[in-house]
Amino acid sequence: MHRPGRHFLQIPGPTNVPDRVLRAIDAPTIDHRGPDFAQLGLEVLDGLRWVFGTEGPVVIYPASGTGAWEAAIVNTLSPGDKVIASETGHFATLWREMAERLGLEVVWLEGDWRHGASPERIADALDDDVRAVMVVHNETSTGVTSRIADVRAALGDHPALLLVDTISSLGSIDYRHDEWGVDVTVGGSQKGLMLPAGLSFNAVSEKALSASRDASLPRSYWDWKPIIAANEAGFWPYTSATNLLYGLREAIAILREEGLDNVFARHARHAAATRAAVQGWGLEVLAVDEREFSGALTAVLLDGSDEVRRVILERFDMSLGAGLGKLKDQIFRIGHLGDFNDLMLAGTLSGVQMGLQLAGHDVGDGVTPALEVLKQ
Amino acid sequence: MHRPGRHFLQIPGPTNVPDRVLRAIDAPTIDHRGPDFAQLGLEVLDGLRWVFGTEGPVVIYPASGTGAWEAAIVNTLSPGDKVIASETGHFATLWREMAERLGLEVVWLEGDWRHGASPERIADALDDDVRAVMVVHNETSTGVTSRIADVRAALGDHPALLLVDTISSLGSIDYRHDEWGVDVTVGGSQKGLMLPAGLSFNAVSEKALSASRDASLPRSYWDWKPIIAANEAGFWPYTSATNLLYGLREAIAILREEGLDNVFARHARHAAATRAAVQGWGLEVLAVDEREFSGALTAVLLDGSDEVRRVILERFDMSLGAGLGKLKDQIFRIGHLGDFNDLMLAGTLSGVQMGLQLAGHDVGDGVTPALEVLKQ
Amino acid sequence: MHRPGRHFLQIPGPTNVPDRVLRAIDAPTIDHRGPDFAQLGLEVLDGLRWVFGTEGPVVIYPASGTGAWEAAIVNTLSPGDKVIASETGHFATLWREMAERLGLEVVWLEGDWRHGASPERIADALDDDVRAVMVVHNETSTGVTSRIADVRAALGDHPALLLVDTISSLGSIDYRHDEWGVDVTVGGSQKGLMLPAGLSFNAVSEKALSASRDASLPRSYWDWKPIIAANEAGFWPYTSATNLLYGLREAIAILREEGLDNVFARHARHAAATRAAVQGWGLEVLAVDEREFSGALTAVLLDGSDEVRRVILERFDMSLGAGLGKLKDQIFRIGHLGDFNDLMLAGTLSGVQMGLQLAGHDVGDGVTPALEVLKQ
Amino acid sequence: MHRPGRHFLQIPGPTNVPDRVLRAIDAPTIDHRGPDFAQLGLEVLDGLRWVFGTEGPVVIYPASGTGAWEAAIVNTLSPGDKVIASETGHFATLWREMAERLGLEVVWLEGDWRHGASPERIADALDDDVRAVMVVHNETSTGVTSRIADVRAALGDHPALLLVDTISSLGSIDYRHDEWGVDVTVGGSQKGLMLPAGLSFNAVSEKALSASRDASLPRSYWDWKPIIAANEAGFWPYTSATNLLYGLREAIAILREEGLDNVFARHARHAAATRAAVQGWGLEVLAVDEREFSGALTAVLLDGSDEVRRVILERFDMSLGAGLGKLKDQIFRIGHLGDFNDLMLAGTLSGVQMGLQLAGHDVGDGVTPALEVLKQ
Repeated sequence: MHRPGRHFLQIPGPTNVPDRVLRAIDAPTIDHRGPDFAQLGLEVLDGLRWVFGTEGPVVIYPASGTGAWEAAIVNTLSPGDKVIASETGHFATLWREMAERLGLEVVWLEGDWRHGASPERIADALDDDVRAVMVVHNETSTGVTSRIADVRAALGDHPALLLVDTISSLGSIDYRHDEWGVDVTVGGSQKGLMLPAGLSFNAVSEKALSASRDASLPRSYWDWKPIIAANEAGFWPYTSATNLLYGLREAIAILREEGLDNVFARHARHAAATRAAVQGWGLEVLAVDEREFSGALTAVLLDGSDEVRRVILERFDMSLGAGLGKLKDQIFRIGHLGDFNDLMLAGTLSGVQMGLQLAGHDVGDGVTPALEVLKQ
Repeated sequence: MHRPGRHFLQIPGPTNVPDRVLRAIDAPTIDHRGPDFAQLGLEVLDGLRWVFGTEGPVVIYPASGTGAWEAAIVNTLSPGDKVIASETGHFATLWREMAERLGLEVVWLEGDWRHGASPERIADALDDDVRAVMVVHNETSTGVTSRIADVRAALGDHPALLLVDTISSLGSIDYRHDEWGVDVTVGGSQKGLMLPAGLSFNAVSEKALSASRDASLPRSYWDWKPIIAANEAGFWPYTSATNLLYGLREAIAILREEGLDNVFARHARHAAATRAAVQGWGLEVLAVDEREFSGALTAVLLDGSDEVRRVILERFDMSLGAGLGKLKDQIFRIGHLGDFNDLMLAGTLSGVQMGLQLAGHDVGDGVTPALEVLKQ
Repeated sequence: MHRPGRHFLQIPGPTNVPDRVLRAIDAPTIDHRGPDFAQLGLEVLDGLRWVFGTEGPVVIYPASGTGAWEAAIVNTLSPGDKVIASETGHFATLWREMAERLGLEVVWLEGDWRHGASPERIADALDDDVRAVMVVHNETSTGVTSRIADVRAALGDHPALLLVDTISSLGSIDYRHDEWGVDVTVGGSQKGLMLPAGLSFNAVSEKALSASRDASLPRSYWDWKPIIAANEAGFWPYTSATNLLYGLREAIAILREEGLDNVFARHARHAAATRAAVQGWGLEVLAVDEREFSGALTAVLLDGSDEVRRVILERFDMSLGAGLGKLKDQIFRIGHLGDFNDLMLAGTLSGVQMGLQLAGHDVGDGVTPALEVLKQ
Repeated sequence: MHRPGRHFLQIPGPTNVPDRVLRAIDAPTIDHRGPDFAQLGLEVLDGLRWVFGTEGPVVIYPASGTGAWEAAIVNTLSPGDKVIASETGHFATLWREMAERLGLEVVWLEGDWRHGASPERIADALDDDVRAVMVVHNETSTGVTSRIADVRAALGDHPALLLVDTISSLGSIDYRHDEWGVDVTVGGSQKGLMLPAGLSFNAVSEKALSASRDASLPRSYWDWKPIIAANEAGFWPYTSATNLLYGLREAIAILREEGLDNVFARHARHAAATRAAVQGWGLEVLAVDEREFSGALTAVLLDGSDEVRRVILERFDMSLGAGLGKLKDQIFRIGHLGDFNDLMLAGTLSGVQMGLQLAGHDVGDGVTPALEVLKQ
């Protein structure tokens, strides 16, 4: 059954894939051991270094972001190692569970899902046994962005590795792997990089590489070493997801054309317009600290949000993000990341407002204040 | 230079081409004399009969709509023939000029570009020499829809042929070739049919076919006869624009899935919401007779509209229709036809409103009243 | 029902459309009156001048090649004008019929469909009343290429216009509009330009432009004047087939990358390999004068060819060209133009050989001698 | 730089992706937690069961085939477990290395890379400690197909699990997970399934599921349990590679249209024609046991094969498979799996023959005997 017009995919990722990227993917596969492939490989590896802000290696996996989480752990840690993790939301919780399943001891800094990781509490939790600190940069489940540079500063000269999940921030929110001193940055294809899901990344510091030599968790698929070695010549030890790499090449070209700073500014502006709408509706943004507002998505507190999302999907063909984990049915999330512009946001906010009203919520006018922001 | 997000193509055609149609076009060309082609040919011819509301032949040209205008004339008329045409706007004027260039004598019923063709005035202008009446169903330059059934009734049993241009109404606004007694209906691919430009059509009545036997304007490319003969088996006398026919097949499938009545209702609803916005802005719709409001586009009176369109294109990446001919810079036109939905319209109207304000026009809030209509 | 692997589309056009061109077509339509369109328009017009070998205007029609035939006539000639045409095959015959239907007097130089146009006979037929000479450069129905430069020389300083159909030679066989002194060159998109059908062209000399001012055949759609005027700024007077223009831009880029001379040489080489195969089979090429062998296709004499083509289509999923007109069932035609390479030709000739044998023709080995040519 | 015509991708995978599959992938991403996705998920899971010949669960990973190897191991085995593996070639060797890296003890049945796994030797190696037998069904590095049903029979009622890699046989060579009593079948997207690389699979028996409850290798990303649970409703625990799933849906539709038996027969026929060509060239096929000839690829013994492959790539734009591991430069491999037909094979073999000759190998005519096979 055809639904007229374009679906509004306003979950906080996967995001709208630009036509240019889809067309790039829609091309015949090539020999993954031939010269054309090598050129492709070197080109995307170089581009990713630019996106992550690093001069070190970036490892590409044909895997979802969850796979890159696992890779970050198994390459750097050993059974029983102690790590610190901050409860910033659903994805931080999932990453912690993975760490425990893989045999780590996690010091879990509980949180209210409305704040980012606390540099102070992390500093307090450090002891000689801590081998790594795991932080989610942008919590996709809450729209809260942790301050990674501050976390790094809080670690001082403690030898713990800093592992950061940027799945929903990379290419959307300012991020600097080298400058901020991160050891492993985990990224994914389906958010700011504007690709379908299916690729994920580890940007790796010297220190992390060094740690990987002693890390003893069993690993094979995720092992950095053979991948980094093969990458020298633009290849991979196993068959790459070539067509997604075509898309990655195009996505990087798009980011270069717009400029990363412009991309970040655009997202910040859309986030500000969205918060203006939330205020106009008389609702509350989940994030409470303005230093932690996310440029990628905005979560809005609303009891009974699932019914609103259902109405909006049915009536206006728009997908919004649900409340996850303990926030189920308590919030909805508006994604405004990826390949997105002012009028798409205006349509999005109009749809949210109509859906709230149709679902029986007596909300005010949020569209007009949002347009005021967009007009500036 | 990449512009983020999707361009808003809100000119009254060419319209947004659904991804399904673009993908259908993006397929290897086949032998235009082979069995697969024959099946394609028969399928699209059958589908077009359904779209036009006819059981007679529909002739497909690899040509723009202008070509199908010419075809309607050269197949049915002879040098010096007298025809009546109503000045409903820019395209009616262009069709008249074509008729004169091809050697016809045109009785030109002048108009103010704010009304449709007048059945009464056409009836008054009929005399024994009149061979045909030419009417534009939906004037793309003004957003005024002429009442074709009433025009037909006004002709009574006069033998003149009724030639109707439905280029911007077909598949957007209710139209019935057989039921309304039209002799030649001219259509195009790039509006309600949601295809790129490049195909155009003549739906042909028995009476028109009969007239074509005596019509003596020179014709070859446009000649119905060999085309209709070859169409029996699903072929054409010359190489068809096969890939556009792939798209046509998919577009017809989409129209069947939604249902033509639902398509017409959707467009009418969007037109009503747009007029509500215009009223909210304190501006005036060009069309004055509510029986003639167009479901496909809305033209808005505004002195200095070109600057507003420039601002909107630059700031919000949206294309609107300009004032054409004598309406240059006096109106702008909002297309809301084709593959379009509520949130795309909300984004469109938001963009118009912001653009008007940024260009210095002190307009009120049109978005809110439009959303009220869309919520119903 | 899926047929495995790629169809071999070895008719002499439409040809295989490169993926790059299909993907270029598969892109959202843009405003045909906006700045992006103007850039597209200027770019393809410039590229076409290069392809035609002219510094004069090239007019693009959204039409099949037949339409561009008509355009060449109605822009330059008047009712009753006398023209010379050479019977080189089916398409020359169709063009002649068109000229007659449009009211010209055609001096028809009969031929055996195995030779090109004879410069000597054309010179002999010239008298003071002759207004134009019509020649098909590459007869798609026979695989015979007429020597246009020699025809031009034969005209001497006679004022007749030279109209040349290059539909199946443009971009496949050496052609030079300006250098050879042609007045109107007719081209199409679906052969050497590697596009789907739907665009056609007139390259126009100063002399033809001048003739168009006095030519009195009725014309509107095909009229050069408003098109050339609008083209100055990159636009057209009516809605262009924008998506096909995207494809044209990409096709021109492909031709520039390979280089026209390399393209011509590749086609000539494939034609030589094909003739070697024909000889190996013990069959006869239709063309008899080696100066007139076509680089675009090879026609092979074979009584009962339709059955062979049927077997080949059914068993090997390959389309070959049929004998047309008076050659029906007497020949088959192998297209080797467009986006084509050595191994595709080897597969093609293998399929022809197997099909001939399966249909009961006791032919020898043509593949091996063809491979000998390809190996050089 | 454009290379004319289509590249011949005749490595034994990734294979040529049908246009229908590429177009299916080239579609907007949807909400991975919405109703449309659930339908997609259920549909591909159902289709995969059909392809694998199982009524049990099939787990889909966004990963290369190597990842599915790892999944088969970590879900069913514990550190120090003893497994038997047969040295059939390069990929069997890699899988063994992975098993050792993950902490298993591998009983390695050495082989000459020209034979499949020996049921007898496996039976002989079984003892009470053996927990699993790992076999590669079709060795992509050698073109030798092991007889899985015989291996299964040789295990008798020993409780060891049977793990089979079908990465290059699934959808190309007859395979029956349930009927043959396999416990974990590993598959990939980029061979017989005609997709780009990026998806891989585990088909899982009841016995394997049961074993997974006690298996203690650390696992998280690869863990079957949460995936199978989420699959009940058509979802996955993490973000799927949605666009590749679109392609998978289309690929399964294509396989259903042709019928798996027809697909297998087509591949077997192409393999026979290829072996006829090898014989004609006077060369030797690597596989020596005719019961083990692969339908998916044919490896040909040739000292100095890398130079031949280089010449073929440069001159004829065809990629062939290299000799891997200890066969480097000793063989070349011709892939004839996936979306492939008779004339593509004829072109392929022609290219190999010409390349051999151009590289200085004095080979005979292999194309003619191959065509004889194809004609039958």
